[in-house]
Amino acid sequence: RTWSSGVIFLTLNVNSRVAMWLSRCLRSQAARRRSSAAALSKCSTPRGDANWGDANRGDANVSPFRRLAGPAARASKALLFRKHGDPSKVVQLEDVDLPPIGAKDVLVKMLAAPINPSDINMIQGTYAILPDLPAVGGNEGVAQIVEVGGQVTSLRTGDWVIPKDAGLGTWRTVAVLAEDDVIALPSDIPLLSAATLGVNPCTAFRMLCDFEDLKAGDSVIQNAANSGVGQAVIQIAAARGISTINVIRDRAEFTQLSDRLKAMGGTHVIKEEALRRPDMKELFKNCPKPKLALNGVGGKSATELLRHLQYGGSMVTYGGMAKQPVTVPVSALIFKDVKVRGFWVTQWKRDHSRDGKAFRAMLDELCRLIQQGKLTPPACTEVGLQDYSRALDRATQPFTSAKQVLIL
Amino acid sequence: RTWSSGVIFLTLNVNSRVAMWLSRCLRSQAARRRSSAAALSKCSTPRGDANWGDANRGDANVSPFRRLAGPAARASKALLFRKHGDPSKVVQLEDVDLPPIGAKDVLVKMLAAPINPSDINMIQGTYAILPDLPAVGGNEGVAQIVEVGGQVTSLRTGDWVIPKDAGLGTWRTVAVLAEDDVIALPSDIPLLSAATLGVNPCTAFRMLCDFEDLKAGDSVIQNAANSGVGQAVIQIAAARGISTINVIRDRAEFTQLSDRLKAMGGTHVIKEEALRRPDMKELFKNCPKPKLALNGVGGKSATELLRHLQYGGSMVTYGGMAKQPVTVPVSALIFKDVKVRGFWVTQWKRDHSRDGKAFRAMLDELCRLIQQGKLTPPACTEVGLQDYSRALDRATQPFTSAKQVLIL
Repeated sequence: RTWSSGVIFLTLNVNSRVAMWLSRCLRSQAARRRSSAAALSKCSTPRGDANWGDANRGDANVSPFRRLAGPAARASKALLFRKHGDPSKVVQLEDVDLPPIGAKDVLVKMLAAPINPSDINMIQGTYAILPDLPAVGGNEGVAQIVEVGGQVTSLRTGDWVIPKDAGLGTWRTVAVLAEDDVIALPSDIPLLSAATLGVNPCTAFRMLCDFEDLKAGDSVIQNAANSGVGQAVIQIAAARGISTINVIRDRAEFTQLSDRLKAMGGTHVIKEEALRRPDMKELFKNCPKPKLALNGVGGKSATELLRHLQYGGSMVTYGGMAKQPVTVPVSALIFKDVKVRGFWVTQWKRDHSRDGKAFRAMLDELCRLIQQGKLTPPACTEVGLQDYSRALDRATQPFTSAKQVLIL
Repeated sequence: RTWSSGVIFLTLNVNSRVAMWLSRCLRSQAARRRSSAAALSKCSTPRGDANWGDANRGDANVSPFRRLAGPAARASKALLFRKHGDPSKVVQLEDVDLPPIGAKDVLVKMLAAPINPSDINMIQGTYAILPDLPAVGGNEGVAQIVEVGGQVTSLRTGDWVIPKDAGLGTWRTVAVLAEDDVIALPSDIPLLSAATLGVNPCTAFRMLCDFEDLKAGDSVIQNAANSGVGQAVIQIAAARGISTINVIRDRAEFTQLSDRLKAMGGTHVIKEEALRRPDMKELFKNCPKPKLALNGVGGKSATELLRHLQYGGSMVTYGGMAKQPVTVPVSALIFKDVKVRGFWVTQWKRDHSRDGKAFRAMLDELCRLIQQGKLTPPACTEVGLQDYSRALDRATQPFTSAKQVLIL
C-alpha cells in the first residue's frame, strides 16, 4: 500500500502506554491524511449520482435522523447502502448533499469512525434496529464542530463530539446534525480513544456498575476478554481495584496476548479449556469467586462462566460471537440463585436520554481514565475512506485482532 | 384395598369449590383413620430394631434439627432412611424413641404430610440439601400441638403448625420439635390445604410478588400449569385479577384438565405445541403479553415461554421436570432485556427466618384465600403410613395427576 492511496494499516499490538503515545503520533498523521481526503471529497463517485438522484427527490433518509433537503449547501462523501446484504457488496462510497444548517444544528467534520460488528449486522439487515434505506453506515465515531446554528448553546466550533445514540451514520466526511444528537468530549484525548469511546467502554462501564455492587477486592470473570469490551472491562476494573479473570480462546500467540492483557491490568488470563480443569481451584485460592460474569460469546463458554460464579451472582450477556444460545443449568438458577441478564448500550442510552446526567457522568469518568493513561483504545487498524471495501471485509473475518477505524 | 389396611386412594380431580367441600369431609375420615393408625404405632417393625440400636448409640440424626436423646419418653413411628437410594428400597417404617420435651419444645402429633418431588430427591441423594443419616423423610406437613414446654410462648395445645424450614422429617406420627422450628396456622382450613401449604403455594406466592410488579390486568405465562405450584399460581393470580396463560403437555384427557384449570381461575389453557403456532397471536389480541413467565420444566418449554414474554420481563425457574437446562437466545437477553432468574422457597424461608414477619404475612394471606374458597389444595391421594412403599413408587412416576399425602 502506498500513502497516495490514502490507506494505512497499522496494528496497535502494544501495551497501554505505548499505545497512547502511538495514538498521539497517529493523530497528526491522520490530520495530514484528512487534508488529502478533503481534496478527494470534491469528486463525486461515478456510480453514485444516478441512484442518488432518486433518493434526493423523495423521503429517503441517509440516516434515521437527517433527511436530505435541497438545495444543498455542501456535499459529503459517505459510505451508503441502499439495500441490506454483504457489506463489501452493498456499501458504496458516494457524494451526499448536505442540508442547510438549522438554528439548532451543527456542521461537523467527522474525524474517525470504527467499523463495529453491530454496523456489519445493521448492513446485513440482521441487527435489532435498522435504519430506513438508503442509509449511511456506522454508528460510532468522533467529529469536530465546524459551524454552529444560531440557537446552539451547548457546543462551540472546535469541540469534539460523539453520537448520543446509534443510527447517526458516522461513515462520512461531514454532516449536519442536531445539537441534541451529539455530546461533547474533551479534545485532549487520543483520536482513537474518542472514536471508540461511545460503544465498548460505555458497555464495559455500565456492566461493571449496574448489575452487582462491586468493591475493590471483588472479582469479575469474562470471556472474549480480547474484544473491545473485554479490554475496557480489564482496564476499568483494574482502575477500581477489581480483579479480572479473563478467558480467551486458545491460539498460536496465546502467551503474547495473555501478556498484553495482563499489562493492561488483567489479573488472570486463561484459555477456554482451562475453565473445566482443576487449575481453577488453584486460581480461586488467591482470588474470590466472581460476583459478575460478562459474556460476549454464548454457548458452552457462557455455561462455563456460570459454573464459577459466586452464589447469587449475575451473568450479563452483551454479545453472542459463538452464535449459540446461553444454556443455564436449572440447578444454577434454583439453588445457586444466579441471575442471567443482558445488556445493550444503545437501549441504555435511549433510556437515559431525557436526563443526560448519567451519560455525561460516565463519559467524564471514562475520559478521566483515558487522560490518566488507565484506559487505552483497543488495537486499531486505521483505514482511509476509499479503502472501505477491504476494511469491511477484514471487519467480518473471525479472530480479527484489530478494530478497523475509518479515518475521515 | 380395604379400610383395615389403613389406606385410601382418592383422587380429587374436581373443581375448586367441590374440592374444598370434599376436603372438609375427608378431614373427618382422616381423623377416624388416625385413631386406628395410633393403635398400630405401638408395634415396632421387625426389621428396624437391630439397625436402630447402632444409630441410637452415636451422633446420628433422625433429622438435621433433632438428635435422639435417651432415655426416651415416648416413641414415634417414622419413615426412616439410613442411606441414599431408590426411596421404595431405602425407606423403612420404624419406631423412633422421642427425646424429653425441653422448656422451649413442643410435642406434636403429625396430621398429614405430602410426598413431594424434593423429598424423593433428598432420599435419592440428588437434592441440593441433604440431612445427616439416618433421617426421617418428608419436609412438609401439618401437625397439631399436643404438649408445650414451660417456656413456650407462641404456641398452645391444639394449635396447627407447619415447619418453618426444610429438613424437619415430617413422615412420622409424633415428634418433639423446637418452638422456633414451626409456625402456627389457623385450624379451620382443610387438612390437605394445611399439609401442602408450606412449599407450593408459598413458591407460587413469592414468584408472583418478588420478580415483577404485577397489577390487575397484567398476565403471567407458566408451564407445568397442572403441578402443585401451577395450580396455586392460577388461583392466587386469579384472586388478584391477573390473567394466566397455562401451558400443559398434551394428553388423552386434555379437555377435562383444561376445564378443571379454567374452573380454578386459569384464563387460558394451551398445549406445549400451541406455543409455536399462529393461534398465539389470536390469544394476545385479548390478553397483554406476560411480564412474568414461570418455568417448572426447562428445556424447549422454557425457551418457548421466553418468546412470548414482554420486553423487559422475567422468567423464573422453580423446577426442571424435563431434566434439561434453560436455553436462552442471546438476542432475548440483549435486545429484549429478559431477566432469567430462579426461585427456591427453602432459601427464601432461610433468608427471612430472622424477621418472621414476611413469612407470617404470606401465610395469613394464603390462609385468607383458602378460607374464602379461592385457594384449594392440589389433587391429592391420601395414603396410610403403612402403605408408604406404594405411595413412594407412585410419587416417582411421570404424569402423576395427584400428590401422595401420608395421613399420620
